Amino acid sequence: MNWWLDACQVPNTEMQQQAEQRQLQLTKPTGSLSVLENVAVQLAGLQGRVKPNVDAPWITIFAGDHGVMAENISAYPQAVTRQMLQNFATGGACISVIAKEYHATLQVIDCGSVGEAYEYVGVERHCIAQGTANFAQQVAMTEEQCIQAMNLGHDSAEKAIANGASIYIAGEMGIGNTCSASAVACFLLNEPAEKLTGVGTGIRAEQLAHKKNIIQQAIQLHQDYVTNDAFKALCAVGGLEIAAMTGAYIRCAQLGLPMIVDGFISTVSALLAVKINPQVRQWMLFGHQSAEYGHQRLLQELDADPLLKLNLRLGEGSGAGAALGVIKLACSLHNNMATFAEAAVIGEKV
Amino acid sequence: MNWWLDACQVPNTEMQQQAEQRQLQLTKPTGSLSVLENVAVQLAGLQGRVKPNVDAPWITIFAGDHGVMAENISAYPQAVTRQMLQNFATGGACISVIAKEYHATLQVIDCGSVGEAYEYVGVERHCIAQGTANFAQQVAMTEEQCIQAMNLGHDSAEKAIANGASIYIAGEMGIGNTCSASAVACFLLNEPAEKLTGVGTGIRAEQLAHKKNIIQQAIQLHQDYVTNDAFKALCAVGGLEIAAMTGAYIRCAQLGLPMIVDGFISTVSALLAVKINPQVRQWMLFGHQSAEYGHQRLLQELDADPLLKLNLRLGEGSGAGAALGVIKLACSLHNNMATFAEAAVIGEKV
Repeated sequence: MNWWLDACQVPNTEMQQQAEQRQLQLTKPTGSLSVLENVAVQLAGLQGRVKPNVDAPWITIFAGDHGVMAENISAYPQAVTRQMLQNFATGGACISVIAKEYHATLQVIDCGSVGEAYEYVGVERHCIAQGTANFAQQVAMTEEQCIQAMNLGHDSAEKAIANGASIYIAGEMGIGNTCSASAVACFLLNEPAEKLTGVGTGIRAEQLAHKKNIIQQAIQLHQDYVTNDAFKALCAVGGLEIAAMTGAYIRCAQLGLPMIVDGFISTVSALLAVKINPQVRQWMLFGHQSAEYGHQRLLQELDADPLLKLNLRLGEGSGAGAALGVIKLACSLHNNMATFAEAAVIGEKV
Repeated sequence: MNWWLDACQVPNTEMQQQAEQRQLQLTKPTGSLSVLENVAVQLAGLQGRVKPNVDAPWITIFAGDHGVMAENISAYPQAVTRQMLQNFATGGACISVIAKEYHATLQVIDCGSVGEAYEYVGVERHCIAQGTANFAQQVAMTEEQCIQAMNLGHDSAEKAIANGASIYIAGEMGIGNTCSASAVACFLLNEPAEKLTGVGTGIRAEQLAHKKNIIQQAIQLHQDYVTNDAFKALCAVGGLEIAAMTGAYIRCAQLGLPMIVDGFISTVSALLAVKINPQVRQWMLFGHQSAEYGHQRLLQELDADPLLKLNLRLGEGSGAGAALGVIKLACSLHNNMATFAEAAVIGEKV
């Protein structure tokens, strides 16, 4: 019952302090590795060891379709969601290549896509619904469906821990899901659609104006139901994959598994998770600042400054995946550089 | 005679165009990998193959001491230059760990440090001078010494190519060398010391003011000799390692070996190289925007937007080395992602 409200693990401040001390002894000017020092020290606290690592990264892609696609808000057809599910599993997608590059386990979960039953090797198929309902007309998910989706995330985090994961990335796939994510963000930040809606996979200017209208009207439609409740905002205008990522983030924090948050849609899930259970925030690293309009506003709300600013706008956990390389390097430097004493280098300033 | 004026190789525009075409076919929204697409496409043109790679990176650290250390402009004592040379070779320095992480060959060249003759395994010792002369009093290097240092860079680029390098990084070590680099930059950009002088390894505010004064006075002292000549600016206030990197960059471009430019000091060498031989520019990638004040102004002059902005201020080629990971990922994605046809995914917008 309401597992998402349970307490999160507490980071190990003693290990974090020991890691800070270690950084001061490494053969470099104090603080000169900046962000790379900070991320290693933070991870030491989260993993509870002076020498952290990301040797066993875990990536789960959650997919879902969106009823609001009936409103013509996306550049690509809905069929692409399922086609990409197969592409993830067969190794051809961006996140598949990233997972291979960094020796990550890649889990692919269909939370609810449109179409007949199927079996793809490497895809865990669930069908909470054949996509959400059209939130321009009605709530996207019932509360029961939303909890089912959050439970998929919960179980994914449990599986990652059981398999020895050292860090967790949630990614998403779902044609139309920037529309849903923007609508959720409007409720969470109490902002109009204008402030948080972008071009997603690449719609034209007139279609962007239309997308904003659809979202703004949906805010009006659902506001009496939502009334500042993050969970209800998720039900009203969210998506199955957005709910699943929210559940995954919360469960990771409860299990003490650090996570790397990806781009716009993932950050909406991250903000949902933090609104629902504020202790989740301290288990989050932020991988990449997306090109999607509105991401910066979300990051500001979470007081987050991502490691990378590569202007990506792909989703799939790709920005967080790319950050894995930087975090891996940060750990290698922290763990393997010589101390002043070991290298007989003068560490004191003149 | 004056090898640095010889023509550079011409990038392969046909391969670059083929790489651009390939990017359009990969299973992602058009342009959604942004910077990662651009770098793979650029590298395809530079390496002359549709599928570029950085499987054989080459990193050379050039070290040198600085006579201007007599003016008390650094946070660390001069002895650290030599101590770090040994640390590079024995694997304890930041760049040593980065080289191991990305399977790079690490070459360590002492162009001229202060002290007795020595032998360290893994360090190629040259002694063009026991450090430069104090540019606050006289020219830092004779033109003959400067050419000798440039020749060390020339030979390093030749050696990299002979060993099958696919990309080249020059890094530097030399206590006091941000002071020298800032002075060179002032001549190249015709700016006062105020605009291009930062805290280097971490001097205090009053020492920074003093450092600026030393540089500004040196500009007065040497301006009649320099008269807008980049090579003479290098002789007047530069360093042996700065000259060596300049030579390396020029020779890489003449041999058709792409390079990743590092931080503030490396970028001064990059700007020197481009001023001396403008064709060099097209062979440069830029790895990282440093925290050192003045780096942004130099990058602007070179019309460069580095891949990473991690706020590092370490030198040693560390920012370019960190970027190697991103470039490696960009190549993997470019080379290994499935095309729309291969994955049977709809690539056309609705």
